[in-house]
Amino acid sequence: MSGGAGPGGATPEIRIAYPSWVRTRVAWTDVYPGDDERMQLAIALARWNVLEATGGPFGAAVFERASGRLVAVGINLVVPLGNSSLHAEMVAFMMAQARVGSYTLGGKGMPEHELATSCEPCAMCLGATLWSGVRRVICGATRDDALGLEFDEGPVFDASYAYLAERGVEVERGVRRAEAAEVLALYRRRAGVIYNA
Amino acid sequence: MSGGAGPGGATPEIRIAYPSWVRTRVAWTDVYPGDDERMQLAIALARWNVLEATGGPFGAAVFERASGRLVAVGINLVVPLGNSSLHAEMVAFMMAQARVGSYTLGGKGMPEHELATSCEPCAMCLGATLWSGVRRVICGATRDDALGLEFDEGPVFDASYAYLAERGVEVERGVRRAEAAEVLALYRRRAGVIYNA
Repeated sequence: MSGGAGPGGATPEIRIAYPSWVRTRVAWTDVYPGDDERMQLAIALARWNVLEATGGPFGAAVFERASGRLVAVGINLVVPLGNSSLHAEMVAFMMAQARVGSYTLGGKGMPEHELATSCEPCAMCLGATLWSGVRRVICGATRDDALGLEFDEGPVFDASYAYLAERGVEVERGVRRAEAAEVLALYRRRAGVIYNA
Repeated sequence: MSGGAGPGGATPEIRIAYPSWVRTRVAWTDVYPGDDERMQLAIALARWNVLEATGGPFGAAVFERASGRLVAVGINLVVPLGNSSLHAEMVAFMMAQARVGSYTLGGKGMPEHELATSCEPCAMCLGATLWSGVRRVICGATRDDALGLEFDEGPVFDASYAYLAERGVEVERGVRRAEAAEVLALYRRRAGVIYNA
């Protein structure tokens, strides 16, 4: 085994970039005033990711809560980038933090941020939400919708949501649920890899 | 807002690389036969990260379970890389998957992998463990040790560990606990940023 850098070496560099359609398809300069518009973008990202075959059927976006300004988007990149942690929410948080230049979206003097995600977060993403600094999360499809299509969501309990609430993170569930769940079904029909099965 | 790539643009690229000491200090070609040796490396990584001031007081490593071959290491890089998801375990999983060239460490035909982590995983890392494909986790310091030093661990419950066990992931806790907890205390004495507080 080599101790060197570079492919095959012990100290590789991880690079996470969007597929090219993200730059052109996303309306970066639009304002997304409410839950409906924010969720529509998260769902559109999930659908585009399926149709472009660039990852799993999940999309997310980070907004400035009051202004509706779009800060970052995320899509599931697990299979194309060979990285089981790259769920849509994780990518959205990483990209948002890169844009604001901080490890938190909840720093002093910052506007409040919120996350829209096309499906209720798995255990990893729920934990990551707490560390990200967002103050609010809106979710589309439910855990049951995901489980029904054989996506495991991990150890998430009512107590998990209560834990977030106690720390000042609001969660709104079931926003445009049917439309969000339809993207999961679309992916299933196309027989995508269920990487968490 | 620009839709362009590059710093400040809407589509940045995330790069995750180790600080330079990781390449030289880690005994990459050693074999780590048992829990003690594996945990000693995880704790050493945590301590080096504090002493080099390159992140939080947490270290982790992924091994081939049977052979004791070291596949990847991880250290907390939250503050230096401005990314709240870069806990030691996450970095170890990402680097290990980059090395094996797959989004899972539990693929068919692969040797079994396990994670050693200097502290019990937070909610995010516990979820990530499930998706990573490792079959076993050994932990040093406990959740209580972390909480006592004001590191939040998020919504992790007994049921969370049971969930992993049901899916065939073994967890061994309290390996070299005192030595692992001492690194947390060392960091606290040096008044490091508690980014999850």
